[in-house]
Amino acid sequence: MHELRREFPVLERVAYLNAGTNGPVPARAVEAVRASVEAQAERGRSGKAVFERMLERVELLRTRAAATLGCQTSEVALTGSTTDGVNAVLTALPLEAGDEVLTSDQEHPGVLAPLAALRDRSGVEVRMAPFDALAGAVGERTKLIACSHVSWQTGEVVDCGALVATGVPVLLDGAQALGAISLNVHMLCCDFYAASGQKWLCGPNGMGYLYVRPERCGELSPPWPGYGTVEDPHDPLGSPFHEDARRFDVLGFPADQQTAWALAAFDVFDDHGGPGALHERATAQAETLAERLAGAGHEVAPRGHSTLVSWRAEDPPALVAAMAEHGIVLRDLPGTSFVRASVGAWNDESDLERLIAALAA
Amino acid sequence: MHELRREFPVLERVAYLNAGTNGPVPARAVEAVRASVEAQAERGRSGKAVFERMLERVELLRTRAAATLGCQTSEVALTGSTTDGVNAVLTALPLEAGDEVLTSDQEHPGVLAPLAALRDRSGVEVRMAPFDALAGAVGERTKLIACSHVSWQTGEVVDCGALVATGVPVLLDGAQALGAISLNVHMLCCDFYAASGQKWLCGPNGMGYLYVRPERCGELSPPWPGYGTVEDPHDPLGSPFHEDARRFDVLGFPADQQTAWALAAFDVFDDHGGPGALHERATAQAETLAERLAGAGHEVAPRGHSTLVSWRAEDPPALVAAMAEHGIVLRDLPGTSFVRASVGAWNDESDLERLIAALAA
Repeated sequence: MHELRREFPVLERVAYLNAGTNGPVPARAVEAVRASVEAQAERGRSGKAVFERMLERVELLRTRAAATLGCQTSEVALTGSTTDGVNAVLTALPLEAGDEVLTSDQEHPGVLAPLAALRDRSGVEVRMAPFDALAGAVGERTKLIACSHVSWQTGEVVDCGALVATGVPVLLDGAQALGAISLNVHMLCCDFYAASGQKWLCGPNGMGYLYVRPERCGELSPPWPGYGTVEDPHDPLGSPFHEDARRFDVLGFPADQQTAWALAAFDVFDDHGGPGALHERATAQAETLAERLAGAGHEVAPRGHSTLVSWRAEDPPALVAAMAEHGIVLRDLPGTSFVRASVGAWNDESDLERLIAALAA
Repeated sequence: MHELRREFPVLERVAYLNAGTNGPVPARAVEAVRASVEAQAERGRSGKAVFERMLERVELLRTRAAATLGCQTSEVALTGSTTDGVNAVLTALPLEAGDEVLTSDQEHPGVLAPLAALRDRSGVEVRMAPFDALAGAVGERTKLIACSHVSWQTGEVVDCGALVATGVPVLLDGAQALGAISLNVHMLCCDFYAASGQKWLCGPNGMGYLYVRPERCGELSPPWPGYGTVEDPHDPLGSPFHEDARRFDVLGFPADQQTAWALAAFDVFDDHGGPGALHERATAQAETLAERLAGAGHEVAPRGHSTLVSWRAEDPPALVAAMAEHGIVLRDLPGTSFVRASVGAWNDESDLERLIAALAA
């Protein structure tokens, strides 16, 4: 397993504990991007063969993302970010004045900014309830629950079963879950699952994935249509839109260098035990860190079976800066008094030890 | 000027005449991407310094795009494509059932697919009129004219003055214009101008620019909001949205490797005479090609002062394939009987000669 660590050059220099912002970049991704861009420069980027190879890799990427989400390839839309996925869902759903979207008090701007615009544009009400009491807060006008799967602030895991049991459609923000913890969107029974490619999947910035439950897909209008959304791109006004999740594609065709990076990162995980083993290692290490921090007297935020560990600090930005001086990469969480460590399968005992020792010093 | 040609490796191998699909990739872009991704892999992609440098480059890119569009930096939104720009405008405008969008008979799927979805979603009618008779086709219910600045099929240039004189808001698809011909959105007087970065600007796939007239911007709801759309990202529900064109940003924060590529391409143009001289050379060469083709008996499509040259062929896909065998990169235009050559400032006499000779053979 320590071999996984060697795939990531940044780990030779620092204790990188911030995959929750952006994952470490595998050396193979550097190589994959170089190869793609060189080929584009030397051979050009047009023609049937180039287009077909590009499309092939894009569909392979969709398949890889589906396997990670635990669903069918036809249920995955390609987006640029979790925010894109949230926007796609909010744009597609026929929400109107008088309707309400229920969200939590621990949401990321990637959920809240789209909700704010929806509110301003259409008069839909946005109501906030505590992260661990969302199901009980559902009201008669609630048409959607939009919240994190794993809270970016504390690492708490939402009780999705309770949300689903309300009968209200559920949109999960999986930014801190996909690639980090074992999950299966079919077992979660959510309607929509929006996630990032650049965090726990170590892909490029500008790549994300959106699961759309098939029963939902065909009935909704494409939120961000383009060449790839219609069955016959040469007759968009006369042709139906795809019935599957391509209907929700935001990216159009991802740039080949971006696809190449994302695929290279998936390969790295496969070559080191696969997602299941890696998730287990990451969550176990995070739990170890939480216990040690608590043992050293730190107030660790209530957390779930996730890869995030947050603890209270007097001056979080100052602590993050001080730790950076020690070669330890953390982040603060504006609006809270927490500092957060993101623990991946690529981290090891030495990273945790370095953090504990630096905090004690 | 022939020095410009040396910046593009693909031109050593083929007569690349398809910037209308994707521009040739400068060697400097390969190097810029490599440097960006290597830095991300070695130094990580988080922390204040990394974020600030990324933002700095993003704003520099916005400035470069604004200069090319002939407008202020605050009037440019960053998108992933021309399609993104069209979607952003159609989503932001308060169009409803009974309204009509007027478009032309020469539009790209990047305009038509978004219009098809708008029609399906909201009951807005989409009416088509001939490309060169749009202004006269405006009716009482026309709330928007959405059409190409330069037709992707023929290279004709729209009479934007006539469109603007109708008093109806105008959205131009500038995919075949920005970076190809001299233009100034303020002088065009359009309300919205959506364009691509990967065609005539030789940037990466996944980068585009949208001009929004300031008077329009503040009154419209952000079409695709995120972290960067709100003034205070730590309080999205309580904070106003940006008043300038960042309100229309689709990309969120572009990936640094994408920004690096786009900036490197802008640098290439600056180092070889700047946009004005390059546009002049490209359009003059296109005119030369059109004349030679007509002189050789080909039926050249009616075209304007642009960089596209289309001519009739019996079997366009077969001709494109045959020319590819000769190392000449063209494209066919599904649904038409034309083959199209895209002539850039990076092309020279030898490319045109090669095409003419191969066609004669």
